[in-house]
Amino acid sequence: MVLTQYSRSMTQNTIPPTVQLDDIVSLCKRRGFIFQGSEVYGGLAGTWDYGPLGVQLKRNIMQLWWKMFVDDLDGMYGVDAAILMNQKVWQASGHVDTFTDPLVECANCKGRFRADKLTDPNKCPTCGKTNTFGEARAFNMMFQTSVGPIADEKSISYLRPETAQGIFTNFKNIVDTFYPDVPFGIAQQGKAFRNEISPRDFVFRSREFEQMEIEYFVHPDCWQESFEMWIELCRKWFNLLGLPLESVHELEVLETDRAHYSKRTIDFEYDYPIGREELMGLAYRTDFDLANIQRVSGKSMEYRPKDGSASFVPHVIEPSFGLERAFMAVLCAAYRSDEQNGEKRIYLALPEHLAPVKYCVSPLLKNKPELVAKAREVYAQLKQKYGNIIWDDNGNIGKRYRRQDEIGTPYCVVVDFDTLEDDTVTVRDRDTTEQKRVAISELIS
Amino acid sequence: MVLTQYSRSMTQNTIPPTVQLDDIVSLCKRRGFIFQGSEVYGGLAGTWDYGPLGVQLKRNIMQLWWKMFVDDLDGMYGVDAAILMNQKVWQASGHVDTFTDPLVECANCKGRFRADKLTDPNKCPTCGKTNTFGEARAFNMMFQTSVGPIADEKSISYLRPETAQGIFTNFKNIVDTFYPDVPFGIAQQGKAFRNEISPRDFVFRSREFEQMEIEYFVHPDCWQESFEMWIELCRKWFNLLGLPLESVHELEVLETDRAHYSKRTIDFEYDYPIGREELMGLAYRTDFDLANIQRVSGKSMEYRPKDGSASFVPHVIEPSFGLERAFMAVLCAAYRSDEQNGEKRIYLALPEHLAPVKYCVSPLLKNKPELVAKAREVYAQLKQKYGNIIWDDNGNIGKRYRRQDEIGTPYCVVVDFDTLEDDTVTVRDRDTTEQKRVAISELIS
Repeated sequence: MVLTQYSRSMTQNTIPPTVQLDDIVSLCKRRGFIFQGSEVYGGLAGTWDYGPLGVQLKRNIMQLWWKMFVDDLDGMYGVDAAILMNQKVWQASGHVDTFTDPLVECANCKGRFRADKLTDPNKCPTCGKTNTFGEARAFNMMFQTSVGPIADEKSISYLRPETAQGIFTNFKNIVDTFYPDVPFGIAQQGKAFRNEISPRDFVFRSREFEQMEIEYFVHPDCWQESFEMWIELCRKWFNLLGLPLESVHELEVLETDRAHYSKRTIDFEYDYPIGREELMGLAYRTDFDLANIQRVSGKSMEYRPKDGSASFVPHVIEPSFGLERAFMAVLCAAYRSDEQNGEKRIYLALPEHLAPVKYCVSPLLKNKPELVAKAREVYAQLKQKYGNIIWDDNGNIGKRYRRQDEIGTPYCVVVDFDTLEDDTVTVRDRDTTEQKRVAISELIS
Repeated sequence: MVLTQYSRSMTQNTIPPTVQLDDIVSLCKRRGFIFQGSEVYGGLAGTWDYGPLGVQLKRNIMQLWWKMFVDDLDGMYGVDAAILMNQKVWQASGHVDTFTDPLVECANCKGRFRADKLTDPNKCPTCGKTNTFGEARAFNMMFQTSVGPIADEKSISYLRPETAQGIFTNFKNIVDTFYPDVPFGIAQQGKAFRNEISPRDFVFRSREFEQMEIEYFVHPDCWQESFEMWIELCRKWFNLLGLPLESVHELEVLETDRAHYSKRTIDFEYDYPIGREELMGLAYRTDFDLANIQRVSGKSMEYRPKDGSASFVPHVIEPSFGLERAFMAVLCAAYRSDEQNGEKRIYLALPEHLAPVKYCVSPLLKNKPELVAKAREVYAQLKQKYGNIIWDDNGNIGKRYRRQDEIGTPYCVVVDFDTLEDDTVTVRDRDTTEQKRVAISELIS
């Protein structure tokens, strides 16, 4: 999906976000969700490493997406195409010529900046001199490399700037192998790369990110009903992510602001701490991509219906999801603070199916071997059933609760002396902080 | 993991493979497991795209790995580091200087080849001329790119040639955030890239591939027991993949053949159609990697035990798995042919938990609406429960069975006229081809 500019005139009132970006960044670092990329060597701008909790949340979101959009939906086919592709892919798609940002260079300090993002278009943000910028030039955002033992024009390749082209180039493979009826969809998850001039806003605009894209192939006469279906599916998805629907905005992109080939585009935006920003896009792309491939490859992209009716090049509805955008929306929606026993508490009210850790198990006291042994038993049983279970016997119970609250663990289980008598444990609820006695057998089943 | 050379003197007798590589390549293409990368544009050598069945099998293997080695194992932490890393990572690890293959160029046709893989070291395989090669030079296998708006020495970055360094660079982050007790492990799955001079043997030696690596941090005095534990875990893993244990060989790499820092290495090899090749490696790497990071970053990689005993730089056991190697071993182990009713049949005897499709549902006849409706009902129920279910009403039942056999679907369910009477269906077993009447209610539960 080539990014499109759109008018902001149709936006609704923004609900003021209650969480600041710094709160999220700090929590992510402090609790092991996201670290700066290559941090030990001073970092590499625009790259981020997911820590143990981040990778679990990321996996939960990506697997939920795959289940909803591939496993559970009829007529969906998954692919996983290579990141390195033949350069003709990006010539045909227009990326080699037009996937650019305007770049200016300061004649004084040689700093380079994205022209359309300068606070003051005449003043260098690094050295402070004015009128040192020349004409903006088009800077291609694709990372370039060379494939094979000879580095020349022919060996140029790029890190894919989107996953979509890995789907389009496999359209014919899927049709010839699986004989699907239209409408059908091809889905892919994977890394994409853009050499942003100024990466910024944490993982919102990074140089390496994860996309989840679908190309849904339809008869040209029937695109509208499929488009409507996808609007509904996207809403259902936001709901599964735990996003408050009043914070998600559907922006009908005006004709003047759409890509020239698109006949309808909706940008789904979310009220992030940095403002209302794109969460995902849904675009009707006509036959733009398949027609390009047909033209450049010389191979027919026509689809022949089984009922003998006329062949046609399918049109495409493209729901394009950014993992990091979803990840951040989930964190922002879940981030809460309140007061417990006179102390400020931060917690993540994550939906249970997304929480990186489902249960934390502790003995009431760590120096009582009989409590520890019993707690280990409960831990092992829960781990076998749910996988992501934490054992925590550090500090006092209150501190353990705070730690689990911050990472969004729905339930903390404490084994105490009563447990040894009656096989019940204390289960403490993350959101309400209420504690209940529950039989171990009930917990496991 | 930097690849090590090892002696072949310790190998046991090879069981001759019954399947040829061409059989696997053909099946992968024909049934939509693996397509050539960028095929529509004539391909890009050394890249491969996973089709709908391939991506499902790949996901099943990767998720099984994560469950076994991260979710179900105590003391394991997952990470997902960026592919683009600070160039210092690869300077410190030795990759910039030594991750090379010997390259020769033909003075006549300018063809370039890997010197140690030439059939005849004096004769060009492209133009056939002899004695046209000069001295071999070291060709670095890392793909190079440039990050940021200024392309110079400082902006050089590489596509990671292994995932391991994304683990080592996060060692301190994990220790400082999660306070793990040694031994503990950090696990990662993700893409890695090597600019092979001559990619070959299908996905065995491609330029882009998926690794699953673990660095297991231990006290220097205790590495042997952890190493033994990992041998056992690897064997358990091969068993879960459905590999016949007599086709897996444990090769103790001799001291003279080990990397200089390694005190013990086992290469697990599998009897592939192309010969006995590495399936995965298990290496004791001492403190080589953390000591390098400490030296180049100037930051301490010491671990301070909670019991107040002396600090130390942990030593490392590294089990390193290649997804494609596992994928191919699974396919080769599962590939079978027999004769059914006088016709040759090919089938994949995949373990149920790895099969891309669990059930195929068909109506006996596609022109009987009442059968189709009932079959759709059964399909929907199974899909809700198992996800990966195929609907197939093309051709006759025999052909449907053959298609499902080739992709390893364990069970085919057929709805016939009896189903309408008694709510039972025919369930046909892939391996035995036996058919049984089963109540729908039993199938769903």
